[in-house]
Amino acid sequence: MERDTYGHCRWIIPEGYIPPRSHGPAPQLISHEAFCVLNATENNADVRVTIFFEDREPAGPYQLEVPARRTRHFRFNELSDPEAIPLGTNYSSVIESSVPVVVQHTRLDSRQSENALMTTIAYPG
Amino acid sequence: MERDTYGHCRWIIPEGYIPPRSHGPAPQLISHEAFCVLNATENNADVRVTIFFEDREPAGPYQLEVPARRTRHFRFNELSDPEAIPLGTNYSSVIESSVPVVVQHTRLDSRQSENALMTTIAYPG
Amino acid sequence: MERDTYGHCRWIIPEGYIPPRSHGPAPQLISHEAFCVLNATENNADVRVTIFFEDREPAGPYQLEVPARRTRHFRFNELSDPEAIPLGTNYSSVIESSVPVVVQHTRLDSRQSENALMTTIAYPG
Amino acid sequence: MERDTYGHCRWIIPEGYIPPRSHGPAPQLISHEAFCVLNATENNADVRVTIFFEDREPAGPYQLEVPARRTRHFRFNELSDPEAIPLGTNYSSVIESSVPVVVQHTRLDSRQSENALMTTIAYPG
Repeated sequence: MERDTYGHCRWIIPEGYIPPRSHGPAPQLISHEAFCVLNATENNADVRVTIFFEDREPAGPYQLEVPARRTRHFRFNELSDPEAIPLGTNYSSVIESSVPVVVQHTRLDSRQSENALMTTIAYPG
Repeated sequence: MERDTYGHCRWIIPEGYIPPRSHGPAPQLISHEAFCVLNATENNADVRVTIFFEDREPAGPYQLEVPARRTRHFRFNELSDPEAIPLGTNYSSVIESSVPVVVQHTRLDSRQSENALMTTIAYPG
Repeated sequence: MERDTYGHCRWIIPEGYIPPRSHGPAPQLISHEAFCVLNATENNADVRVTIFFEDREPAGPYQLEVPARRTRHFRFNELSDPEAIPLGTNYSSVIESSVPVVVQHTRLDSRQSENALMTTIAYPG
Repeated sequence: MERDTYGHCRWIIPEGYIPPRSHGPAPQLISHEAFCVLNATENNADVRVTIFFEDREPAGPYQLEVPARRTRHFRFNELSDPEAIPLGTNYSSVIESSVPVVVQHTRLDSRQSENALMTTIAYPG
């Protein structure tokens, strides 16, 4: 497999919203938004995330890493440096990588008596 | 980040349907359809939405704005000028912007005892 | 809007499965699979659908029409000529149009006590 | 229909997670992740799947086949050679085919009192 020949270095996810509450036990039933990054190359990926809002300047960059030949599934809820993303707030994200990767967006609203899911491949910008 | 080099100026969402009723308290549990627009450029985006129907001529344009370096999450339910979109009716939308943006479509059918979600990046036309 | 310059004439939806039963009143709560077609051009679209299966030759073509400047939301459940699609069976679909259109796939599993949704822009082949 | 002219030979699905338990009767209500492959060409497709993880080297290749003019809906749960994918574990998949195909990712979390769905066309790499 020619792992270095596919993927993009920038991905955009216009939709973002972390539900302000959950109804099940942590951590598996906590409502969350995630982005999954596959780095199938032979080099580590330095990943930078920028968060855009409706009424203020963007936050970030958030610095993350995805090792060579690995996937990482990140939750927006867990980003904390330089600042946490406020709950119940509309946002968008731009994900940039030092090597080509592929990004998928998923929301799991996994409250106890319900279980809603949505997903899409992010937009390669 | 070279913010002006990605995105498209026209996006298409063939699916559209606003459920005619909801079962939870407003506004957070109102069933709705949304489109999220990220404008990561340094210029304000003038956005025009045209709505297509099964049995009549298109409606619009609806005039919206997304400031530079901002996201806006619009609900089709709340479009009112030149006319509201009727409930319980199939429609499609075309979203055009004066600067490159990225658009994602989401439906949240968030009635109280249920919680259904779906999403997709719109089609860059 | 230059309506004739976007879209594709062939779209592919690999996923297909019509749930064999529903739990709510017809027609709005019947479980179904749909494909939405936007024809924003100035010409009528002659649409041909071919259905692929796991263990037999393809079925079709199913002949449909989407008028100029109109959308149509078709349910796979309702295709009947040359033959109905069997329930509870895996299939894929290829949708071809005489003019450029955009196609989105949606499944609404809208049984009474539950309400599951999924959607994606189809693949422009 | 010119069936040989569309599709790709490599598809990427960054999101992957098989829920570790289900609440309904097998097999139709077992929670599962699936990828649907349409091979509309006139030649059989030899399909190779590679699974990437967060903390170990990739697994595979898994060898599958999709006959000419057929679709196959595969469940990740059922891949067993060279090894089963562990439950409750984040993974990504790369799907490669000897002929052009189209791939769609679907998760059906179809537990009895709930029914969550998500889908997206995979990323053509």
